[in-house]
Amino acid sequence: MSKLTHFDDDGNAIMVNVGDKEKTKRQATATGYIKMSEECYNAVGLGTIEKGDVLGVARVAGIMAVKETSALIPLCHIILIEQAYIDFLLDDTSFTIAVNCTVRTTGVTGVEMEALTGVTVALLTIYDMCKAMDKGMEIGGIYLVEKTGGKSGTYRKGE
Amino acid sequence: MSKLTHFDDDGNAIMVNVGDKEKTKRQATATGYIKMSEECYNAVGLGTIEKGDVLGVARVAGIMAVKETSALIPLCHIILIEQAYIDFLLDDTSFTIAVNCTVRTTGVTGVEMEALTGVTVALLTIYDMCKAMDKGMEIGGIYLVEKTGGKSGTYRKGE
Amino acid sequence: MSKLTHFDDDGNAIMVNVGDKEKTKRQATATGYIKMSEECYNAVGLGTIEKGDVLGVARVAGIMAVKETSALIPLCHIILIEQAYIDFLLDDTSFTIAVNCTVRTTGVTGVEMEALTGVTVALLTIYDMCKAMDKGMEIGGIYLVEKTGGKSGTYRKGE
Amino acid sequence: MSKLTHFDDDGNAIMVNVGDKEKTKRQATATGYIKMSEECYNAVGLGTIEKGDVLGVARVAGIMAVKETSALIPLCHIILIEQAYIDFLLDDTSFTIAVNCTVRTTGVTGVEMEALTGVTVALLTIYDMCKAMDKGMEIGGIYLVEKTGGKSGTYRKGE
Amino acid sequence: MSKLTHFDDDGNAIMVNVGDKEKTKRQATATGYIKMSEECYNAVGLGTIEKGDVLGVARVAGIMAVKETSALIPLCHIILIEQAYIDFLLDDTSFTIAVNCTVRTTGVTGVEMEALTGVTVALLTIYDMCKAMDKGMEIGGIYLVEKTGGKSGTYRKGE
Amino acid sequence: MSKLTHFDDDGNAIMVNVGDKEKTKRQATATGYIKMSEECYNAVGLGTIEKGDVLGVARVAGIMAVKETSALIPLCHIILIEQAYIDFLLDDTSFTIAVNCTVRTTGVTGVEMEALTGVTVALLTIYDMCKAMDKGMEIGGIYLVEKTGGKSGTYRKGE
Repeated sequence: MSKLTHFDDDGNAIMVNVGDKEKTKRQATATGYIKMSEECYNAVGLGTIEKGDVLGVARVAGIMAVKETSALIPLCHIILIEQAYIDFLLDDTSFTIAVNCTVRTTGVTGVEMEALTGVTVALLTIYDMCKAMDKGMEIGGIYLVEKTGGKSGTYRKGE
Repeated sequence: MSKLTHFDDDGNAIMVNVGDKEKTKRQATATGYIKMSEECYNAVGLGTIEKGDVLGVARVAGIMAVKETSALIPLCHIILIEQAYIDFLLDDTSFTIAVNCTVRTTGVTGVEMEALTGVTVALLTIYDMCKAMDKGMEIGGIYLVEKTGGKSGTYRKGE
Repeated sequence: MSKLTHFDDDGNAIMVNVGDKEKTKRQATATGYIKMSEECYNAVGLGTIEKGDVLGVARVAGIMAVKETSALIPLCHIILIEQAYIDFLLDDTSFTIAVNCTVRTTGVTGVEMEALTGVTVALLTIYDMCKAMDKGMEIGGIYLVEKTGGKSGTYRKGE
Repeated sequence: MSKLTHFDDDGNAIMVNVGDKEKTKRQATATGYIKMSEECYNAVGLGTIEKGDVLGVARVAGIMAVKETSALIPLCHIILIEQAYIDFLLDDTSFTIAVNCTVRTTGVTGVEMEALTGVTVALLTIYDMCKAMDKGMEIGGIYLVEKTGGKSGTYRKGE
Repeated sequence: MSKLTHFDDDGNAIMVNVGDKEKTKRQATATGYIKMSEECYNAVGLGTIEKGDVLGVARVAGIMAVKETSALIPLCHIILIEQAYIDFLLDDTSFTIAVNCTVRTTGVTGVEMEALTGVTVALLTIYDMCKAMDKGMEIGGIYLVEKTGGKSGTYRKGE
Repeated sequence: MSKLTHFDDDGNAIMVNVGDKEKTKRQATATGYIKMSEECYNAVGLGTIEKGDVLGVARVAGIMAVKETSALIPLCHIILIEQAYIDFLLDDTSFTIAVNCTVRTTGVTGVEMEALTGVTVALLTIYDMCKAMDKGMEIGGIYLVEKTGGKSGTYRKGE
């Protein structure tokens, strides 16, 4: 039977013991999107040409946030990230920008939180740069797409 | 006509000049939710009793993240936050926890990003503490509910 | 003969070389206490019921501080913490709250400073939340209770 | 009647509203000490001559920690520190080093936590640099010596 | 007669008192350059086209570092930056990239260190991204170009 | 043929994959200098005697910055530093202070950026403490002196 592992038997928050877990190659990919007005979407989409590189700034912010995950999420372990990258997918019909973040490590705990943190900070950075134009943007669809490695093995959303 | 204000005329990212903006009382409220399995939702909901105080930890993480906003979002200004608080709303039928974060300051720039950052880090913290039980959780519905103060005045989502 | 190892032969501060030290399982437990007025003690002790969870917030602050040790203490090495937890002991006769923090790692340097930093930040957090009620609180009794692992082996206070 | 101000009526942790508080000159001084073996005390005391400047490093660490207070203590406000300094008092008979830290600001909240954080991080830094020589050191006597400014006016320990 | 203001009469490092200084509009511009091989220079210069936007990443890193100045430089005060921007100048004959950083605030201390920190971190970021191609790069020519505001008034290098 | 490794084939910034690189002992030494007026140089040089220990503070700042490298430089990996030290060389004829920083690790990526970051933050700290006396100081000559370990082996500037 499952239980919330970040608490001891008295219900106190703990950073769980990962000292006896196996050191394996681990990878996680998370996703999320931001939906905006057509006008705002067009300004961002033309990014690198004349309006400023919104997505370039968001990518840097997301990658830097991946490295700050354990300082933001109270019970996360510090992890030696081996690789991190962020991709954007623009959907011209729904005026939506999707962000995917993949993180890899060789270690005793997974990198799901790192991938999710990279996605959300990249999305918040897009929001910040666009909010003068559109205050009604909405961020959503944030979840773990896939993870591999570790005792629980491979997980894929929806499988 | 609107434009992306975080870039100069050559399209380079800048931290915009707020030196001539009026110092006013400003407030922002943001929201977001996390949707989980019934089993996981029940474990969290019983929080303070025997399973550990998931929401208490998430609240602390969210408030601390409010103060780190300018270190996470590249072009955000440092702000002297005067007040920050986070509320949770649990929906027993959809197994969803909503997070609201309100931030207040007296200053030259708004606190929208601070409220949004508080919401998302609180949500990520819930995710972290529940992920051993449910890897399929989804975070969404993150937007600015309301802001007051500043030159652009009051904004309310949907009005 | 012993000497201060954090300085070179010319007396300059250095981060000492741990590259040739053995990677072993290491653990450290530190303790400390805060003594307060009876009125304040009672308010904290009733914590989770109606006055707010002082100890829950202090626990999260202490665990997060464990991870920031190398950023606070100039010559400390960055360490991959494997486990961290904090316990509180309330003494109803002396109106004193004791904090114990235990940290584990597998690595080339010990985690004594991490355990001590967890204890002191948890104590400072209690102080912060109670200072409107009692400005005369005193923090003391901070020391290393026990450490195991590493070349110098096991140490227990008072043995 | 006093109450714990860092919680709302439902007992949830909040960063309290300081937006309506008066901006005044505020100052706080905190103290604390570390007691060590005679051998260790002598090594530190000769500091700047041939063994390395333990107190110089601890002073820098303490001042830098003053600036990190709001990042360490969950419900502390960010404060524009105007001045910070740290003094050491060495007692040759008890092999004790006392640390005093004074912080000044002009603002809406006090700097008690900043002074206390400066003291404790300076003490932890001394501990770190001396622990290879003496693992039995004890830190104690940490309290607020005096504060001035703000609505509650002047406080002096023991008055 | 001048003296080093960051030390008290006993020669101890202090964060100097700025509480009585006048709040004025202040600005500082700093500069610096990195010199590299022709091959490396060409790869960077073509930046946004096919090799990746080295200068875009360096700009974000520099602006974020401006905000971290008081956490990096021990005796610097925290400052509410009002504006920060970074420009690059490429010299095709010497294979040199110059970085200029301008920072503005309204406050009691200047922003010289913020501008210098923005310049150096932007330069280090360029170095990092190019070092696989050219390990012999050299960073130099870092100085304060101009500052305005404050008691000492306007300074221009070389005047 | 060389290329900029911090970008993918589409020119997007990435934190490169170091998961398949060999774990070896690695070392890097970087250098840099600050040139100042004769008056200022003399004040610093007399440091530990009566004017305050400028170089002692700069050394601590540099070592602490070594540990913050991955938080400052966007695409740098977090590294478990095993040793870091900083040396100063004073040249009485040119009123120049040279800073050398050496960093060691056992890992999958080099420590060149850590050594360079230690040098530049130590230099900026000297600048900060001397700027009240001399605003015309110049920082330069920052480069990698030597690195050993890793697939590309030993590099020495000028060989």
